[in-house]
Amino acid sequence: MNLLLFEPEDFMPDGRAVISGRRLRQLRDVIKASPGKFCKAGVIGGKLGAAELLAIDDETAAFRFEARQEPPPPLNVTLLCALPRPLTFAKVIHSAVTCGVKNIHFFHSAKVEKSYWQSSRLAPEAIREEVVLALEQCADTVMPELFFHRRFRTFVEDEVPKLAPEGAIGIFGSPGASERVPIGAARRGPVVLAVGPEGGFNEFEEGLWKEAGFQAVTLGRRILRSEFAVNSLLTLLGGC
Amino acid sequence: MNLLLFEPEDFMPDGRAVISGRRLRQLRDVIKASPGKFCKAGVIGGKLGAAELLAIDDETAAFRFEARQEPPPPLNVTLLCALPRPLTFAKVIHSAVTCGVKNIHFFHSAKVEKSYWQSSRLAPEAIREEVVLALEQCADTVMPELFFHRRFRTFVEDEVPKLAPEGAIGIFGSPGASERVPIGAARRGPVVLAVGPEGGFNEFEEGLWKEAGFQAVTLGRRILRSEFAVNSLLTLLGGC
Repeated sequence: MNLLLFEPEDFMPDGRAVISGRRLRQLRDVIKASPGKFCKAGVIGGKLGAAELLAIDDETAAFRFEARQEPPPPLNVTLLCALPRPLTFAKVIHSAVTCGVKNIHFFHSAKVEKSYWQSSRLAPEAIREEVVLALEQCADTVMPELFFHRRFRTFVEDEVPKLAPEGAIGIFGSPGASERVPIGAARRGPVVLAVGPEGGFNEFEEGLWKEAGFQAVTLGRRILRSEFAVNSLLTLLGGC
Repeated sequence: MNLLLFEPEDFMPDGRAVISGRRLRQLRDVIKASPGKFCKAGVIGGKLGAAELLAIDDETAAFRFEARQEPPPPLNVTLLCALPRPLTFAKVIHSAVTCGVKNIHFFHSAKVEKSYWQSSRLAPEAIREEVVLALEQCADTVMPELFFHRRFRTFVEDEVPKLAPEGAIGIFGSPGASERVPIGAARRGPVVLAVGPEGGFNEFEEGLWKEAGFQAVTLGRRILRSEFAVNSLLTLLGGC
C-alpha cells in the first residue's frame, strides 16, 4: 500500500478520518502505527496529501488529513478488453488501473468461454476491491468506470463509435500484425485500445475492428500473458 | 501454453519426442490431442518448429518434431533486481523471461528482508519450472542464466563492472528521478537495468549506483508492482 485511501464516508463531522478493517491491519505493518506518524494519503475522487495518525486502538485508527496536490493525470486511453478468465480478470484490472486508465470495457468474443461471465469476480464489490487495491498501489484517487458488453458485433459496430472520444485513434492487438504500437500516442490525443482474448481475435472479429477504423498492432514475436500485454501496450501508448 | 517445449532428453534414438506429466495434461486441453494434429513446438536451447502428435495414451504422448526457425532474438538487457518477496520473485522471473532477458542477477539491498533468501522458491528446480513456463508463454527456447548476490556493496562496486557487456549503458529505477526511460535503448546497444526493492533503494544505495555510472530513471508518478515495473521498463527499453 503506497497510499492510504480514504472513502468520503470515513470523515467525521469534526474532520477526522476514521478507518478500520483491512486498511487498519495494513497500516500497522506499513507505518508501524504510533500517533504523530505521517503517511501518504488521498480521498477517493479527491486530492492526495498527508495523513497524521492521531489515535489507534484494536478497532480503529483516526487521522487528520491535509490535502496537498491533485492525483496523477489519467492515461488518455479507453481500454476495450475481451473478458479474461476469472483469475486473469483481476490482474488485468490491476494492470489497467495502475497505468491510469479510467474507462474499461469488457466484451464477449469467440474465444471467451461463456462461463467466464458467471464468475463471482465480476460482482461489483469484488471489482471495487481490486480497483481500490490498484489505486493504493499507484497512488491515485480517481476510480475508473467499468462496463460490460455481451454481444461482440453490436459492441464493435454500434457502441464503440459512441464511446470513442472525438479525434481518438483506434488500435487492436494482433500478434501477426506488421505495425508496432505507436509510442507516446496517448500523449498526443485519445486512444481506444482493443485487446483480444487468449488465443486472439478470430478473422471475422479482426475484420470488424478494421471496418470500425481500428489499426492492427503487434508487440512483437513474444506472446505475453494478458495482464502483461495490457501493461506493455499501455506503457508504450503513454510513452513513459 | 503457446509452445510445446521439448527437453533434449525427450528425444528417443528413433527421433521421436516423448513427453509425460504436466505437458501431457496441458496438451490434452490445448490441442485436444488426437494423432495427426500439429502444434507449435521448440527444443530447449534449440529451434522452434512444428510437432505432429503420433500417439497418445494416459501415460505419454509421442511426437515427430520438425525444426523450422530460430527462436526470437534476446532482449539486449542484463537485469539486476533486488530480491523480491517470494511470491513476487516468481512473477518477476516470468516478467523478465517473457520479455526476452537472458541474464538476471538478484541481489540483497537494505529493504530486502533477510527471510526472502530462505524461500523454497529460490531452489533451482522451482526456478527452472518458472522459467520453462515463461518460455512456453512467450514461445522462446533459450534458458536465461540466473545469479544471486548477497552483498550489495560488493555486488555494485566489484561485480557489476565485470558483468556489464562492453559499451553498455547502466540505468536504475528511481521514482523521484527526472529522467525518463530511454525508449528503444536496447535496440541501439546493451543495457544494464537495476531495479530496486519495494520501497526503493535508499540514499546510500542510489549513491553507489551513480558512482558505478548508472543513471536514475523514472516511470512517472505511478508506482507499479515489481513485476509490472520490470515489464514496463523492459518494454520501453525494447521499444516495441
